[in-house]
Amino acid sequence: MKIAQVAPLWERVPPPTYGGIELVVSRLTDELVRRGHDVTLFASGDSYTLAKLEAVCPRALRLDPNLREYSAYETLELSQVYQRAEEFDIIHSHVGVPALLSANFVPTPTVHTLHGSFNSENINVYTHHKKQPFVSISNTQRQIDLNYVDTVYNGINLEDYPFIAQPLLTKPYLAFLGRFSPEKGPQHAINIARATGWHLKMAGKVDVVDAEFFEREIAPHIDGEHIEFLGEVSNAQKVELLGNAALALFPITWREPFGLVMIESMATGTPVIAMNMGAVPEVIAHGVTGMVCTSYEEMAAMVPVALQLSRHDCRKHVENNFSELRMVDGYEQVYEKIIQTRINQNGRIHAAKIKF
Amino acid sequence: MKIAQVAPLWERVPPPTYGGIELVVSRLTDELVRRGHDVTLFASGDSYTLAKLEAVCPRALRLDPNLREYSAYETLELSQVYQRAEEFDIIHSHVGVPALLSANFVPTPTVHTLHGSFNSENINVYTHHKKQPFVSISNTQRQIDLNYVDTVYNGINLEDYPFIAQPLLTKPYLAFLGRFSPEKGPQHAINIARATGWHLKMAGKVDVVDAEFFEREIAPHIDGEHIEFLGEVSNAQKVELLGNAALALFPITWREPFGLVMIESMATGTPVIAMNMGAVPEVIAHGVTGMVCTSYEEMAAMVPVALQLSRHDCRKHVENNFSELRMVDGYEQVYEKIIQTRINQNGRIHAAKIKF
Repeated sequence: MKIAQVAPLWERVPPPTYGGIELVVSRLTDELVRRGHDVTLFASGDSYTLAKLEAVCPRALRLDPNLREYSAYETLELSQVYQRAEEFDIIHSHVGVPALLSANFVPTPTVHTLHGSFNSENINVYTHHKKQPFVSISNTQRQIDLNYVDTVYNGINLEDYPFIAQPLLTKPYLAFLGRFSPEKGPQHAINIARATGWHLKMAGKVDVVDAEFFEREIAPHIDGEHIEFLGEVSNAQKVELLGNAALALFPITWREPFGLVMIESMATGTPVIAMNMGAVPEVIAHGVTGMVCTSYEEMAAMVPVALQLSRHDCRKHVENNFSELRMVDGYEQVYEKIIQTRINQNGRIHAAKIKF
Repeated sequence: MKIAQVAPLWERVPPPTYGGIELVVSRLTDELVRRGHDVTLFASGDSYTLAKLEAVCPRALRLDPNLREYSAYETLELSQVYQRAEEFDIIHSHVGVPALLSANFVPTPTVHTLHGSFNSENINVYTHHKKQPFVSISNTQRQIDLNYVDTVYNGINLEDYPFIAQPLLTKPYLAFLGRFSPEKGPQHAINIARATGWHLKMAGKVDVVDAEFFEREIAPHIDGEHIEFLGEVSNAQKVELLGNAALALFPITWREPFGLVMIESMATGTPVIAMNMGAVPEVIAHGVTGMVCTSYEEMAAMVPVALQLSRHDCRKHVENNFSELRMVDGYEQVYEKIIQTRINQNGRIHAAKIKF
């Protein structure tokens, strides 16, 4: 199959540290190549991939301190993609709204994975293009009526997450990993650690917009002993942080459409105590691989219960449901289904040559 | 002629106070309707126009304090426009980069007026689409190689700018009108007023990004006597401010592609002393309607010379070169030229029905 993968330009593929979407794109793209597909990845030029890389800009845009006009790069990327639409059997967009318009103009079908969430601003434009094929990354994400082809859960490469049978016993701790924004709930993680007397290790980036929140709600609690802050960590450090933890906390305050850190934690064997919002109940097997709670107080109360859960069951749950291979199986089926539908409708899939 | 006008959504059309692009779109659209064209204006829903209004969002987006995803509205607007492309003989885009991609996919031609300036970020995407028809708003604006159909200067309705034969004599003053940003040079206007001992009246908005600049460079000089600050003013106040001034200052520090305030000032009879950058030498008749200077010191030195210029000549210069009627003449010719070229190439201009 000839496949175009269209990645955001903000981070390179794969991202050096954090970056959910670009990580998924990287895993998907490389595994599709391993399975023999002819894949072209449109991304920033510092990406590395098994696919053919089409560099839209020399390096990830988040590295450019003077960035003003993100949309200029985005339009250039979509121009490069749709100009060559006829070369592909399917275009897989990970950039959301901007690709909706161009997708209508070429016979090559575009499938959009919904990595974000709906809001009052983007609902109208998604609804306007509701007939296009969409993939949701959880069932709970389907808040508006679109042409959903399937739900494909994000998957990880289990080899990147070695199983740790026994967490750190000398100085046991709870782990929080994620952006330090109110939506991710680091403030609740601190409260849970305080209420239970547990040591808490926190890691993740602090975006500029969250600097004030961090200074006000997080920084005063960091003492390096009870509450420890590690800043932005590498993938290797992330795996170590999660795997050695007794438990991971996922105290979100918004309807997160997936939540990669939950499967990363469970893959290493560490159960997750999470707030029942968004995709949490789809990702955690309640009472088996973690606890799905309805309040932050309940999360604190569930620490002793969660400590009894089987770390092997956590690992097995990710192997069965959230592996990279499983994810790629899902997308292959989606591509085949869409192409078959298009052939049935049109008797062909390719466009006449478009002049730019 | 069936014409679509595509306006930015940031301000309503016309803007209540300041807003260069939306003002030009308003004047162009209404005069095209008066001349018998069938015009559809895509803009925010609080716009008022003689054309058929297609409201993309209920009100100007700058009024929404919670705006996060401008691009969602922009994509919706372009979806609405290009979905109906076949209904128009020509699409006239005032939104820049985002319209470049869609324009390739429909047989109805799109002409892009370049209201902004080129920078390292948008040059690549403009160059990628260089074959599309562009209108520059000054000759100096043509910094990169594109398919320029013509230069059409911005124009104003002379009736909106009554001629004032004699400026205010009781307390004569120099005028500065524009955003309080470093590029517009309000700091130089203050220096010129100080150096010459003239009273200076300043008006314009202070954007959030410029608040620090304003506090540091401007605010300390405002004394309400020698240096007066009027804030954001209405159109009526603007005309009064410019018309009653002895001279207007245009001490820009960047290559501004046009500079509407120069023609607004000259229309009221007030000569302009300006820095020789961007379109300044194309707009001011040096030594007749103002002075084109190569330093801010020279601008101060030229005050006595500029005071001798004929206010009638200033008015006449705008009537002859920068009237709304002249601008609309220019765009009508551009539309006809593009449509004729397209017919010659294709034998037709309209698209097959596009499915959304």
